[in-house]
Amino acid sequence: MDFEHSDKVKNLMAQVTDFMDRYIYDAERIADEQVKTSGNKHHHPEIIEELKPKARAQGLWNLFLPDKEYGAGLNNLEYAPLAEIMGRSLIASEVFNCSAPDTGNMEILAEFGTPAQKKKWLEPLLNGEIRSAFSMTEPGTAGSDPTGLQTRAERKGDEYVINGRKWFSSNAYHQHCKILIAMVVTDPNAERHRRASQILVPLDNPGVKLVRPVMVFNDDGGHGHAEVVYDNCRVPASNVLGKEGDGFMISQARLGPGRIHHCMRAIGGAERAFDLMCRRAQNRITHGTALADKGIIQHWIAESRMEIDQARWMVLHAAWKMDKYSKKEARQEISMVKTIAANMFQRVVDRAMQTHGALGFTDDVPLFRLWAYARTLRMADGPDEVHNMVVARRELRKYGHEMNAALPKMEAARR
Amino acid sequence: MDFEHSDKVKNLMAQVTDFMDRYIYDAERIADEQVKTSGNKHHHPEIIEELKPKARAQGLWNLFLPDKEYGAGLNNLEYAPLAEIMGRSLIASEVFNCSAPDTGNMEILAEFGTPAQKKKWLEPLLNGEIRSAFSMTEPGTAGSDPTGLQTRAERKGDEYVINGRKWFSSNAYHQHCKILIAMVVTDPNAERHRRASQILVPLDNPGVKLVRPVMVFNDDGGHGHAEVVYDNCRVPASNVLGKEGDGFMISQARLGPGRIHHCMRAIGGAERAFDLMCRRAQNRITHGTALADKGIIQHWIAESRMEIDQARWMVLHAAWKMDKYSKKEARQEISMVKTIAANMFQRVVDRAMQTHGALGFTDDVPLFRLWAYARTLRMADGPDEVHNMVVARRELRKYGHEMNAALPKMEAARR
Amino acid sequence: MDFEHSDKVKNLMAQVTDFMDRYIYDAERIADEQVKTSGNKHHHPEIIEELKPKARAQGLWNLFLPDKEYGAGLNNLEYAPLAEIMGRSLIASEVFNCSAPDTGNMEILAEFGTPAQKKKWLEPLLNGEIRSAFSMTEPGTAGSDPTGLQTRAERKGDEYVINGRKWFSSNAYHQHCKILIAMVVTDPNAERHRRASQILVPLDNPGVKLVRPVMVFNDDGGHGHAEVVYDNCRVPASNVLGKEGDGFMISQARLGPGRIHHCMRAIGGAERAFDLMCRRAQNRITHGTALADKGIIQHWIAESRMEIDQARWMVLHAAWKMDKYSKKEARQEISMVKTIAANMFQRVVDRAMQTHGALGFTDDVPLFRLWAYARTLRMADGPDEVHNMVVARRELRKYGHEMNAALPKMEAARR
Amino acid sequence: MDFEHSDKVKNLMAQVTDFMDRYIYDAERIADEQVKTSGNKHHHPEIIEELKPKARAQGLWNLFLPDKEYGAGLNNLEYAPLAEIMGRSLIASEVFNCSAPDTGNMEILAEFGTPAQKKKWLEPLLNGEIRSAFSMTEPGTAGSDPTGLQTRAERKGDEYVINGRKWFSSNAYHQHCKILIAMVVTDPNAERHRRASQILVPLDNPGVKLVRPVMVFNDDGGHGHAEVVYDNCRVPASNVLGKEGDGFMISQARLGPGRIHHCMRAIGGAERAFDLMCRRAQNRITHGTALADKGIIQHWIAESRMEIDQARWMVLHAAWKMDKYSKKEARQEISMVKTIAANMFQRVVDRAMQTHGALGFTDDVPLFRLWAYARTLRMADGPDEVHNMVVARRELRKYGHEMNAALPKMEAARR
Repeated sequence: MDFEHSDKVKNLMAQVTDFMDRYIYDAERIADEQVKTSGNKHHHPEIIEELKPKARAQGLWNLFLPDKEYGAGLNNLEYAPLAEIMGRSLIASEVFNCSAPDTGNMEILAEFGTPAQKKKWLEPLLNGEIRSAFSMTEPGTAGSDPTGLQTRAERKGDEYVINGRKWFSSNAYHQHCKILIAMVVTDPNAERHRRASQILVPLDNPGVKLVRPVMVFNDDGGHGHAEVVYDNCRVPASNVLGKEGDGFMISQARLGPGRIHHCMRAIGGAERAFDLMCRRAQNRITHGTALADKGIIQHWIAESRMEIDQARWMVLHAAWKMDKYSKKEARQEISMVKTIAANMFQRVVDRAMQTHGALGFTDDVPLFRLWAYARTLRMADGPDEVHNMVVARRELRKYGHEMNAALPKMEAARR
Repeated sequence: MDFEHSDKVKNLMAQVTDFMDRYIYDAERIADEQVKTSGNKHHHPEIIEELKPKARAQGLWNLFLPDKEYGAGLNNLEYAPLAEIMGRSLIASEVFNCSAPDTGNMEILAEFGTPAQKKKWLEPLLNGEIRSAFSMTEPGTAGSDPTGLQTRAERKGDEYVINGRKWFSSNAYHQHCKILIAMVVTDPNAERHRRASQILVPLDNPGVKLVRPVMVFNDDGGHGHAEVVYDNCRVPASNVLGKEGDGFMISQARLGPGRIHHCMRAIGGAERAFDLMCRRAQNRITHGTALADKGIIQHWIAESRMEIDQARWMVLHAAWKMDKYSKKEARQEISMVKTIAANMFQRVVDRAMQTHGALGFTDDVPLFRLWAYARTLRMADGPDEVHNMVVARRELRKYGHEMNAALPKMEAARR
Repeated sequence: MDFEHSDKVKNLMAQVTDFMDRYIYDAERIADEQVKTSGNKHHHPEIIEELKPKARAQGLWNLFLPDKEYGAGLNNLEYAPLAEIMGRSLIASEVFNCSAPDTGNMEILAEFGTPAQKKKWLEPLLNGEIRSAFSMTEPGTAGSDPTGLQTRAERKGDEYVINGRKWFSSNAYHQHCKILIAMVVTDPNAERHRRASQILVPLDNPGVKLVRPVMVFNDDGGHGHAEVVYDNCRVPASNVLGKEGDGFMISQARLGPGRIHHCMRAIGGAERAFDLMCRRAQNRITHGTALADKGIIQHWIAESRMEIDQARWMVLHAAWKMDKYSKKEARQEISMVKTIAANMFQRVVDRAMQTHGALGFTDDVPLFRLWAYARTLRMADGPDEVHNMVVARRELRKYGHEMNAALPKMEAARR
Repeated sequence: MDFEHSDKVKNLMAQVTDFMDRYIYDAERIADEQVKTSGNKHHHPEIIEELKPKARAQGLWNLFLPDKEYGAGLNNLEYAPLAEIMGRSLIASEVFNCSAPDTGNMEILAEFGTPAQKKKWLEPLLNGEIRSAFSMTEPGTAGSDPTGLQTRAERKGDEYVINGRKWFSSNAYHQHCKILIAMVVTDPNAERHRRASQILVPLDNPGVKLVRPVMVFNDDGGHGHAEVVYDNCRVPASNVLGKEGDGFMISQARLGPGRIHHCMRAIGGAERAFDLMCRRAQNRITHGTALADKGIIQHWIAESRMEIDQARWMVLHAAWKMDKYSKKEARQEISMVKTIAANMFQRVVDRAMQTHGALGFTDDVPLFRLWAYARTLRMADGPDEVHNMVVARRELRKYGHEMNAALPKMEAARR
């Protein structure tokens, strides 16, 4: 047992930290201003594109991808502290070409894509030339229940004809987004885990309609959480990923790493909030003493430090277990960190916000954006409550107990 | 001891409820669309102005104002359940001419205004013809600490010349807003509670500059939380409210009712979220059963019902004590409900949000807006932590303990 | 709506408070010493018997009993603040002849007893000459589920022959205890709510065996939570309370008041802990300042004050609703206060304990005993979780939802 | 980074687990019965002495002692999982000669003892022939504040004459206890961290009076938390441990390992409670389904699993840091796990208790004893609140903040 990162990882951590200090934190405000100046809420800020080659030149590129052929060849445990550091700023991951949902999409293209699919979509994604969306969640059905999926892809000759409505197809409003990976029902009569397939749908397909960016926490700008209508959307049959019916299996494959990446970033986000809280506590004087001298603020700082550190060890252990054993062996750990990290993150940000007074509500500090990320994580990739139920089920199974309720397998959820 | 409202109040409750059911809930979406259609994020939706005469015609007007000469003549206990019902929708209070900060501004104009001031500002406010802002919070100073105030009004001849910067001057972007009540330092050398005065500043004064609507929780539209610069802003000396140096005393006078009005609305907001949660729980089927049949959702529903009801009795008791004894006698109760109601509100909304899945984050349901209101209430009128400290101090005083730290008197805070 | 007790109640409150100050708090230690000196852990301390006539002489006797023929004729709302004050000391209720389970037993004897039963058992109970136990809970069955009850009473001629095992027959080790009211199955084939009856069993019946005082929180002394074996225990058929099969109905009748009496006392117990916490906070100096000057202690004091006051209004409202409408109408309120009061009580005591340092764990202060009472209240009369489920069910019913799970009716539980 | 124990440790874990399964759990009830049968609440159960040679024969002896000369030579990280497993039963540590306060006493004797002191006291302790107590906490002074200590040892010739009162001198009522290590003021005028010394006081010294076993959570039996009066207690000057004035330094030395041993055991205690909760949940049927099928119970199981695992990684990391760097470097980690483990432990036990119904309060299950241990850990070795304050101070120091309040150094506290 050893709690220290390897020298290789420590060096990468230092590099990413240095890059963050040098470029990213300043870029946050620049990016905001570029969007504001553009007059387009979906404007992609130029600063991001300026920084990407800088990151790539340093080798800080596709760090998330364990496959050496395509990415940095780091395992989950090695990537974890880097994702954490990137998670300190909501704009960082894209600069390092490590942002969701592209990461998951690249992973499954690398694993399940045909050479033609890889050529057309994976390569430009790896190069950071285009971006992609994952189109799974539907307005009317529970994400955690695979049997509910309704969007239908009917095979007609050499094509699939897709009809249905999705939302939270995040990233679809990104100005560089070119491709959607849509989760659709290809065989409604198949057994429940073989009903669906994942199909590549170019965004410029005339059957794809971006209805609206769903307003999430007052925000309908940026990359957007698109509501998408597929209206007799025809794509070649060769656009299916893997085989017909593989949809849930592929979802599973992307879920493990996807969830834990969010958790790593959540740790980083919480550290950022913690940092802001400590600075504020030290600088703000009320009634003659600094906030840092007040017992309740000290209590928040101590609680936050303890909660962050606890969550981090859980994430690192889950990552290690995925690497050493398998994603499947680490399912319990992944479920646990998903819940733990999201809730810890929200609590820490809330305390940081309260420490800032009314300023904490404004976009003069990044706290609310961190909050929004934290809050969605309690739902994304399966709500906390479903994960908790599954965690309990796995524990009780050790005692020979099989629950009598139909229980979710957490097969699939939005990343 | 009797826990039942009078028949008069019950009738008013039925009337307001009926008005809400008939007009307000539908108007929420209409108002949103009118703003969207206008292309102006500060657009004042026409539907509000259409509904105001309807409410007034039914006598549901200025219910908050205990002074019979100007308002409905209800005491705090009588007004509480009505404010609660209005609090179920964030657009309702304005329709009934009961929305902050006008309510507080009308109260202090009625109590401290000269006949000329009343004629010019109180009358149109009472008629719902104009709106007003309260300009107290400053970016650099703690709202709960009266000695920190920096915006300066210098007496020059028959005028005051005001210089300084405020923010969270809420409502200043309302298209009907005509008047700011500014809290400013008139005598920096006076003892700490006589340093400031409240001065009426017409919004069209050339020395008043609305710098920006501060982005609060991603939102810089609507009535706006204005950042305001007073730049050699000259107003007649007769615009002072009460006497020079009365600023804190007048703040105190408005604070008691102001705080408790927020609490009443918070109860209503929580009831709205509770209602949405129960409906969703009943209608949403996952894994074969309704959410309502799942133990954790039932737990949330029970916890929420218990927390709401507890907060309500505290609010009603505080209102009763203000009426029966005095605002001053009820200070401890007001401090307590301020903290209790805001936190309860936030917790209930959070549970309702989680019950809604990703839908709960969107503006397809009013949950996030309720959350935003709840979250600000933990800071508005003094942060929870300061109130808690003051509550403890008052309890400990019964044991003869005087704290050795300089402690806030909670004299003034943004309403 | 009026939040003030009547003058009559205020006078009684003053009287009980005065009695507490004058006799009860001192008697706590005296009682402890008398038990210790006696060498018998079940010894009934003489001081209790000395104080009973004093209380009775002042009319502070049987205050719990609303029936004027037998008791003080106070309704629940009037009794509530008196029970609260008594609840400040764990020895007080008995001095005023207001202690469980005698209170519930007297109520049902008064309501359902025959003249002979009343003569034999109710009269000496009313006079405080004897004490009684309620023998319902069984080791192997869930108290909240009436179908599980196993102790059997078979009718043989003019007698019932009782066989079975009970535990938590509290009070059975009291040296004055003469009578058990046993809940037993008289007709196993009847529909589920008519299976059981309540039968009066004299403690000196040779078929009654006190197996052991169950060790509860390290304590097997005092009145004891008896484990009782009924071994061919024969009692006259006339000892049945009400009619055969009325067992659950009678349990229901005693439960409403029984539960709320516990809640009232819980408020008082919490106030006692709060009082000890404030005194300690003021007197204990560490690192140069009093605990009362430390932010986290102030936070606890404020939280405790707010939680106690919230719980109290809920209890008073529930009591009022029982009086004004009916026990049945107030079921939701009673379920809620049961959960609220017990949990609040435990939290407040825990904070008070922590404020006392290691002293808080010892019997030099009454904190641990209060804790033990609070902790049992989370289970007694139905565990919190069952009450919460029932509360949710009643709320959801307003939305037309009927849960699909077999749910408890909370018919009966140990008081 | 590696999250797996070495094979050596895994083998030891298997051995200890096997010993627990084979002997310890059964011995719990046997020990209880032996005490009961003896009629002496301080009776030392024979079963313990029977099992000690068995454990020693297997090499499961003095595992806590890193010094190879005296103990097993395991470092903290290696010992942690073993202490955890022992922590599952409150009687286990003594069987393995790993129980507090002997562990700490042996450590400091090994480190600071003279050859004569070692011969006389360390050897029999290492052999498990005698037991010892640590006599530091005083009734009137805060354990976390070294300046408050009052018990006085005056040097008179070749002797110290000790006068003062201690309590919570745990273990002093153990029938094998022969020696107290007393923390006493040898120079009241020295600077605050040089005022005290640790002096070896044989229990049979005529100046030592065991006043009473302090009743802690209703329990004044077992090893007892002794109140001790030193009344002109004369001991040779050579009984001082280390040098005069070293008292605090030695306390510090024992504190790091002492605290973390408690934390390790707390993890094990929580696992035991978790295990009992799961078994009960599976076996107890209410209203037609097992408790394990109820959402709220599943929630508790999931929460508990997540809290236990989080605490464990923190403990293991802290142990690793102590080993790899130093006790001093690991101070922040030790403070954190002290708070985390104790609170987690208490919460998990409380849930397990509630899952058991009234049974959970009784000594038919070990839950209440685990609770009592957990509850004292929130106070032992410094209250949570002091540790939290210190944790915050260390975090804030990274931002250049020095708190203005006199703050504890956590130098010393009862182990």
